[in-house]
Amino acid sequence: STVDDRIEEIKGAVQEALRRADLTFVTGGLGPTPDDLTREAVAEALSIPLEFRSDLWEEIQQYFTERHATITSVNIKQAYLPCGAHALHNPLGTAPGFLILNDDDRLLVVLPGPPGEAREMFSHEVRPFLEKHYPAPVSCRCAFNICGCGETVVYDRKQNVIKEAQAAGIKYSFIPGPGELKLILNVNDPNVEKKELFRELSQQIKELSGSDLYGVNEESLTGKVGELLTEKGATIGVAESCTGGLVTSYLTDVPGSSHYISGGIIAYSCEIKESILGVNSKTLGEYGAVSAQTAKEMASGVRRLMNAAYGLATTGFAGPDGGTKENPVGTVYLGLATAEKELAQRVYFPGIGRTTLKKIAAKRAIDLLRRYLIDPDGVDQC
Amino acid sequence: STVDDRIEEIKGAVQEALRRADLTFVTGGLGPTPDDLTREAVAEALSIPLEFRSDLWEEIQQYFTERHATITSVNIKQAYLPCGAHALHNPLGTAPGFLILNDDDRLLVVLPGPPGEAREMFSHEVRPFLEKHYPAPVSCRCAFNICGCGETVVYDRKQNVIKEAQAAGIKYSFIPGPGELKLILNVNDPNVEKKELFRELSQQIKELSGSDLYGVNEESLTGKVGELLTEKGATIGVAESCTGGLVTSYLTDVPGSSHYISGGIIAYSCEIKESILGVNSKTLGEYGAVSAQTAKEMASGVRRLMNAAYGLATTGFAGPDGGTKENPVGTVYLGLATAEKELAQRVYFPGIGRTTLKKIAAKRAIDLLRRYLIDPDGVDQC
Repeated sequence: STVDDRIEEIKGAVQEALRRADLTFVTGGLGPTPDDLTREAVAEALSIPLEFRSDLWEEIQQYFTERHATITSVNIKQAYLPCGAHALHNPLGTAPGFLILNDDDRLLVVLPGPPGEAREMFSHEVRPFLEKHYPAPVSCRCAFNICGCGETVVYDRKQNVIKEAQAAGIKYSFIPGPGELKLILNVNDPNVEKKELFRELSQQIKELSGSDLYGVNEESLTGKVGELLTEKGATIGVAESCTGGLVTSYLTDVPGSSHYISGGIIAYSCEIKESILGVNSKTLGEYGAVSAQTAKEMASGVRRLMNAAYGLATTGFAGPDGGTKENPVGTVYLGLATAEKELAQRVYFPGIGRTTLKKIAAKRAIDLLRRYLIDPDGVDQC
Repeated sequence: STVDDRIEEIKGAVQEALRRADLTFVTGGLGPTPDDLTREAVAEALSIPLEFRSDLWEEIQQYFTERHATITSVNIKQAYLPCGAHALHNPLGTAPGFLILNDDDRLLVVLPGPPGEAREMFSHEVRPFLEKHYPAPVSCRCAFNICGCGETVVYDRKQNVIKEAQAAGIKYSFIPGPGELKLILNVNDPNVEKKELFRELSQQIKELSGSDLYGVNEESLTGKVGELLTEKGATIGVAESCTGGLVTSYLTDVPGSSHYISGGIIAYSCEIKESILGVNSKTLGEYGAVSAQTAKEMASGVRRLMNAAYGLATTGFAGPDGGTKENPVGTVYLGLATAEKELAQRVYFPGIGRTTLKKIAAKRAIDLLRRYLIDPDGVDQC
């Protein structure tokens, strides 16, 4: 449930949740300003007074000192918690969280609103507490991470396996994201036989997915590409037009990526494509900036310039304006170059808007490199 | 409420919502695969049978044809809606949404799960319907968009105004994001006097915010910088190290940004900083790659290379490894160069993780440019 910043509403929601569930999470409203009322509302909901915690106040002051920032008097209220609450430390912000186990052995976990802070606190403090307090049910779960084809196609190819899984009580779900897709199988409390079936069906899904599957569970597309480049001791340079830097930004989200990413060129204008990347002016004139030929030359240009083993490039019409009859808004050419070879792919996602197109095109460019690194001859070309 | 992919659960939640509220939104579960059960569950919840809508089936087929993609038989179920439901068209995907007004004049709106599709459908079809069906209550609302200082400082400086607003029944809230913050004031159904007060207090908040305020309501930081550059007829080149392309990617999220962005260089290694951006090897040796001096030379280098009026640069330690005693992980230097001048700023956000640091540093770099474009002499320097 989502509740307004009012004590009565938060209190009501917390009381209702504790009545219904063994485990309740509350996020947000732990900030320093007077619209942050979760602490107060929880204290009222449980009829527990708030107490000042000098240890937390020390931590908050230290947070500001380390950042050479000025602490103001409004931050004091963040050092108050309901009496007896177990404090959760916040390395990423000033808002401590807390958890309370009530007399009915029901657990209330209160986390700060910013997702990064809540996630960190959950992994480092809440999860260990939960694992200790509630012995984990045995379960099998696997996420299959896919790039390069949609939900319908993935389901269609695997429907026999999925149906067999379902018949055995194994649940599945699809989680689509821009340019990617997760297929998740899970089953709680399986017996030995079902565990074995889970393993078998998972294996079948992997085989049916072929090169569309880039990893499982927490494995990321960029992490996979990083592994492949590291294995080969190879480096990459990226030339971006319509993705505007997003390909390289995704690649550099991976810790340690500086070992295989030399750098990138964002060549938004034709002049820069020519002057810096060395795309032939005849190519631009004859085929246009958005073409397979330009994508290839951009990839080769950045490869040479960055002195890298591979060059990767994007050029397309992100919209809302631009586009031609053959290459309307939503068209992106992806280019890849090695010392011996140049190739290009065309993707087309009309009507999804500029920022989503950038994301999908960036993911598909990275996926093109992944596929090439695994099997140079197996890549589709336009 | 969040519900599991099971008919009984979805049905229960929909019935409960219709009992409690005049207007209910359901999102997700409209996809083509058998785990998508919202259509079926809503039909059961309202005891209305599903009917095949040939007009929707036409649209779905067209969606696939336009994309040269293969339609599979599982997509057929997306053409079914509860009898009498008003279909909502989906230009961004295959899942039509729908809305149903029940006999008690309660409205149920069902939207697809992907946020982009739901948003588009809401703006283009649901909002107009709601505005017609429920005459809008008069309300005043303003979001003040701030970059460069935290929630505590913003509240502290404006607390007198905020308290005056509260006393008059005007609500406020803070919405923090990476590197940015929104302060929102709103009041429903105000009388003439209160409208006047709202205007006055909004004006005071603007004045108290000074240069930290970059815009109001839907105005974005990158949009503002785009306006300022367009006004001056100026262009920009960006040199990025630790942000890995994210500054340029943010800037190019704005439609039409190709008019003022020449391009960017992502110089992840020292060699590229030297060879392409022309950073002096003595500078790198003496001050290090993460230094004010390097940031300035990167900005000047990319300005020259891109033949732009302004050069913007980032260099820092994004972590988890790296960093020095003076410049630990979380330190980023931002550089700005014009034909006459070079300047640098230092920002420090320890312990927030690599990807969040990239976002904050990118926003702050763009904000540095914004401040400089407004008042070249008013910018803090390190």
